[in-house]
Amino acid sequence: MSITASVERPMSLEDLRTALQRFASERDWDQFHSPKNLAIALSVEAAELLENFQWTPEVDSLVLAPDQHAKARHEVGDVLLYLIRLADKLNIDLLAAAAEKMQLNAAKYPVEKARGNSKKYTEF
Amino acid sequence: MSITASVERPMSLEDLRTALQRFASERDWDQFHSPKNLAIALSVEAAELLENFQWTPEVDSLVLAPDQHAKARHEVGDVLLYLIRLADKLNIDLLAAAAEKMQLNAAKYPVEKARGNSKKYTEF
Amino acid sequence: MSITASVERPMSLEDLRTALQRFASERDWDQFHSPKNLAIALSVEAAELLENFQWTPEVDSLVLAPDQHAKARHEVGDVLLYLIRLADKLNIDLLAAAAEKMQLNAAKYPVEKARGNSKKYTEF
Amino acid sequence: MSITASVERPMSLEDLRTALQRFASERDWDQFHSPKNLAIALSVEAAELLENFQWTPEVDSLVLAPDQHAKARHEVGDVLLYLIRLADKLNIDLLAAAAEKMQLNAAKYPVEKARGNSKKYTEF
Repeated sequence: MSITASVERPMSLEDLRTALQRFASERDWDQFHSPKNLAIALSVEAAELLENFQWTPEVDSLVLAPDQHAKARHEVGDVLLYLIRLADKLNIDLLAAAAEKMQLNAAKYPVEKARGNSKKYTEF
Repeated sequence: MSITASVERPMSLEDLRTALQRFASERDWDQFHSPKNLAIALSVEAAELLENFQWTPEVDSLVLAPDQHAKARHEVGDVLLYLIRLADKLNIDLLAAAAEKMQLNAAKYPVEKARGNSKKYTEF
Repeated sequence: MSITASVERPMSLEDLRTALQRFASERDWDQFHSPKNLAIALSVEAAELLENFQWTPEVDSLVLAPDQHAKARHEVGDVLLYLIRLADKLNIDLLAAAAEKMQLNAAKYPVEKARGNSKKYTEF
Repeated sequence: MSITASVERPMSLEDLRTALQRFASERDWDQFHSPKNLAIALSVEAAELLENFQWTPEVDSLVLAPDQHAKARHEVGDVLLYLIRLADKLNIDLLAAAAEKMQLNAAKYPVEKARGNSKKYTEF
């Protein structure tokens, strides 16, 4: 059974993790997939996603033309794929890590202080 | 009911999407969350994650000390949170986008040609 | 006189700054060159430069094949062009900013403590 | 003579290149300064610079408060320092590379076609 045969929607994060393991294994690519290299790849993909909005006024970035939307969708997909792969290599549970960080962010930015405040609003 | 009260594991991507909507709404932060700004934030978080591996030899990047692992876990969490938020604003189904891109990647890198080949191995 | 006619080596940073002003002005591109957008562009170019080293083992990154070297040279050029342009818009003297920062870095990493120490060696 | 003693303005790019060589040598940091690692560091610094503009409306990014301006100036300085260091390791003449790339960009975006056109205006 080929890898692609196993790629059918809807896939879960766990399905994607397993499919990516097989994808790399069949190509003998684990040798390239150190966490360091995967973190580079993730950062490069995030920049490619950002490139789509480089000269776009903020107000226009919400509604993309169909070809722009498809391009953004593909880059979003790549970012998630590398994120899953990196988390797998580091034994990080993606959903648990995000839930944990959202709790930390909620404590850092209490509603009453953060409301509409871009000055206090620094990166997570 | 507070936001944090709703943050309990295991959360699904859909749970996180909804929780992030409420998180932003309660803080009146939707005004800052244009796709352009979220793509910037995603890229910045990916770089913060990468920073952890900046001077680390590849071979050492697989096994992190506990504090480094926690730091990486938090950055991984932030990347996923911004990715969910951005996909939500662009009406992109994250799992479908990743599955679609993996199929494209499988077609681009057929097993027989890509095996162990770092020269053919360019970014997704 | 065309822009390209003025581009002759050796140019100084100041020459490049002036040439870039004219380059943007002739194309009516100042409207796109907010510091925010230029900082995005700089980050995207830096990622494109990094992409060249994505899967390259560290030891191999020092000696590039001629086509790789040319690609890296072009990306290095783009990074400097956007950096000059951004600094110009923010009224920052590039050389003075770098000299100032090197002094700060020297104070932060005194020789006797920093020698050969990758643990203390965090980003500037 | 200490490194810092040699840091006096105005320094040229060449002065900075030589000072950075000594800076690394005195700290035995050349072992960390592979082009791959320096490209990572450059990308991380560019993201730190971008972070300053993350939630800032474009129109507000032109005039920074004094503390924001100082922060941006330091990040701009770091980007230039790593760029000089990387170019040095790759034997790339920074000014020549930028001048060469500007000529390529001028050919790619002829004035008559590019004027005020954000659609044709893609990244360099």
